[in-house]
Amino acid sequence: MKNIDRKYANLLVETALNVQPNQTLIINAGPEHHEFVALLTEEAYKLKAKQVIVKFTSEQISRLHYLYQSEETLTHIPESLILEHDEYLKEDLVKLALRSPNPGLMNDVDASKVMAVSQVRGKALQAFANYSMSNQGQWLVAAYPTYNWAKAVFPELEAQAAYDKLYEYILYATRVTEDNDPKQEWEKHNAQLHKQNSALNAYNFESVHFKNGLGTDITIGLVKGHIWSGGNSPSQKGIPFNANVPTEESFTTPDRMNVNGIVYNTLPLNNNGRLIDKFWLKFEDGVVVDFDAEQGKEALEGLLNTDENSRRIGEIALVSFDSPISNLKTLFYNTLFDENASCHIALGKGYPLIENGGSMNRDELLERGINQSLIHVDFMFGSEDMHAEGTTFDGNIVTIIKDGNIVL
Amino acid sequence: MKNIDRKYANLLVETALNVQPNQTLIINAGPEHHEFVALLTEEAYKLKAKQVIVKFTSEQISRLHYLYQSEETLTHIPESLILEHDEYLKEDLVKLALRSPNPGLMNDVDASKVMAVSQVRGKALQAFANYSMSNQGQWLVAAYPTYNWAKAVFPELEAQAAYDKLYEYILYATRVTEDNDPKQEWEKHNAQLHKQNSALNAYNFESVHFKNGLGTDITIGLVKGHIWSGGNSPSQKGIPFNANVPTEESFTTPDRMNVNGIVYNTLPLNNNGRLIDKFWLKFEDGVVVDFDAEQGKEALEGLLNTDENSRRIGEIALVSFDSPISNLKTLFYNTLFDENASCHIALGKGYPLIENGGSMNRDELLERGINQSLIHVDFMFGSEDMHAEGTTFDGNIVTIIKDGNIVL
Repeated sequence: MKNIDRKYANLLVETALNVQPNQTLIINAGPEHHEFVALLTEEAYKLKAKQVIVKFTSEQISRLHYLYQSEETLTHIPESLILEHDEYLKEDLVKLALRSPNPGLMNDVDASKVMAVSQVRGKALQAFANYSMSNQGQWLVAAYPTYNWAKAVFPELEAQAAYDKLYEYILYATRVTEDNDPKQEWEKHNAQLHKQNSALNAYNFESVHFKNGLGTDITIGLVKGHIWSGGNSPSQKGIPFNANVPTEESFTTPDRMNVNGIVYNTLPLNNNGRLIDKFWLKFEDGVVVDFDAEQGKEALEGLLNTDENSRRIGEIALVSFDSPISNLKTLFYNTLFDENASCHIALGKGYPLIENGGSMNRDELLERGINQSLIHVDFMFGSEDMHAEGTTFDGNIVTIIKDGNIVL
Repeated sequence: MKNIDRKYANLLVETALNVQPNQTLIINAGPEHHEFVALLTEEAYKLKAKQVIVKFTSEQISRLHYLYQSEETLTHIPESLILEHDEYLKEDLVKLALRSPNPGLMNDVDASKVMAVSQVRGKALQAFANYSMSNQGQWLVAAYPTYNWAKAVFPELEAQAAYDKLYEYILYATRVTEDNDPKQEWEKHNAQLHKQNSALNAYNFESVHFKNGLGTDITIGLVKGHIWSGGNSPSQKGIPFNANVPTEESFTTPDRMNVNGIVYNTLPLNNNGRLIDKFWLKFEDGVVVDFDAEQGKEALEGLLNTDENSRRIGEIALVSFDSPISNLKTLFYNTLFDENASCHIALGKGYPLIENGGSMNRDELLERGINQSLIHVDFMFGSEDMHAEGTTFDGNIVTIIKDGNIVL
């Protein structure tokens, strides 16, 4: 492993995740990443973590489970799995997930099986998932290259060149170079995002209307007292952390009952190894009432039908088209990157981004208009010609995005 | 992955492990092996396995746990871990472990911590370990190369050449070539070992006396009604399987109370990443009463002091010095290979190799002279000049090994 690996590992564990003495860190990663995960583990121990628990999951092997296991076996949740996750929640827990997509890997897998597993696991491990969704402790989603992922992003290059280029892009997007101090870069970057959040919060918009040449024409209501967030923010225990590296967005919580119009995606969505692209969703009073997709329509339909609220949205995020990641003009097939190149919306569960939201229960959050679902799936709809206007609660109209870029 | 990988995977899963429809296979492997593990998984599913559960453990990361975690954290066994293993035992379970040693990796780790973890885990998961020790279901220990292991075996070669040579040796030792039918090879090989077992069983030895120029001079009593085993044999459920690939040995169960003399090791022992070498053990009435080691004495002492029976032995195995693996004249730092190049003894738990042994409880087995311990650690003491004589219960003396080779 190279020096830059150590620097990147330190950025993730110390600067972004901000691991504290005596915390328990759970790392989810692919087995391909074991050497980098060893660095992450060591960085956490240097910060006096109590323990680091590493879970390696191979998507190639998961695909075989889906192909060969019966639905009954696939959807059986062992008692021990539930107990294990309950035990984790008794620790002072932080989570780190390394995501390396395998675009299209699951194309030959029965979508209904994937959805069935996602439903039962989602329900069984809801408290565990909610721990991060509501920022009870620090959590982080980050990326590390694999040869498979690199091949999908740079199909024209040979394996090693593609891998090296992908890693170069990841380091660029995450502000790590041979010579710089990434911690300092991230302090500046976080401050910049905080400033943007403050400007958005000061307007206190009732809704935002997005429109572009592709056909998107949608008005997204925001919940009363919504807070725009982005950059690092404190966990409920008061430890500041970045939940995504990279991150370029300001995001908040839409009103689940108040979304109307049509939205066209601008970047493909790689959901559980299945590609969904060239799709549109039509909303009425918050619900997707019609949709179509040129690719992956079945997978999109499965997603929308996950549960009673998976046709409603839980996040709206603003990203300038002229952002470091979108300037790479590269499709990463990885939401972590692609969502930071483009304005996006998440279907499903909303972040409790209102005062005291973290301590509200499901019913209280629903009452405030914050969606509750087993899924939270981002899709990208930003474009170079995007225009967005906010309408404040006192009726003023303010341009937020002009020609793709945030102009506040 | 190459064709030969698929052939090797098939040998392990179909021929050796003999996976049956609706069985649950647990694979333990290093994360480096994920691509080969995907092949093993697919082979098992083709045989209609109900499910394949894969556990990747990185020894590099385990080393960090040992270096940084408190003994309290290290020795804490979560309830969920026990429940999980209880759940496995409710399945029609088969186990496969891929072993790739990292010789010396744990040299900087506190031996007492390793021993403490091994003790508490051993106790907590005793029933799970016992499932294979008593052949309740099929199980298999096999190997696959890693760059680290290859470097230890062939330090003079560059990384890829060492890896390729190690794999070549593994395939040679496991009787897999581009052109052959490994299943047929193993049928012949198993038949040969069965013949050797029958000859040994026919003599019904009371004890075996080993002597060589290095100083070994030891008499090992065998339990009454002992059965020599080797090659494939049926699980308690009646499914024939090979527990080790490769395997060249005939082995049986010594009388835990009746071992006297001194034994010198001839190949280093890599135990939990710590090397123990140039050691001797002196036995009186079955117990190690004195020992020394030029390398790893502390680790050896820890091993001997694991529990009340870890100074007694549980296995004696006969291997001709002129065997395919020993003819490779290569130190593999991997017991699976090195034990098949040399006569060996295991400290600790004995296999219940007597009639109905598999259904006897701990006390019944102890009464019959079969040792019970948390450990089962093989060490090699065979040599080119080894002589061994058996004494039958009716007082006849028979030469078993002459100039290193089995001559029955």
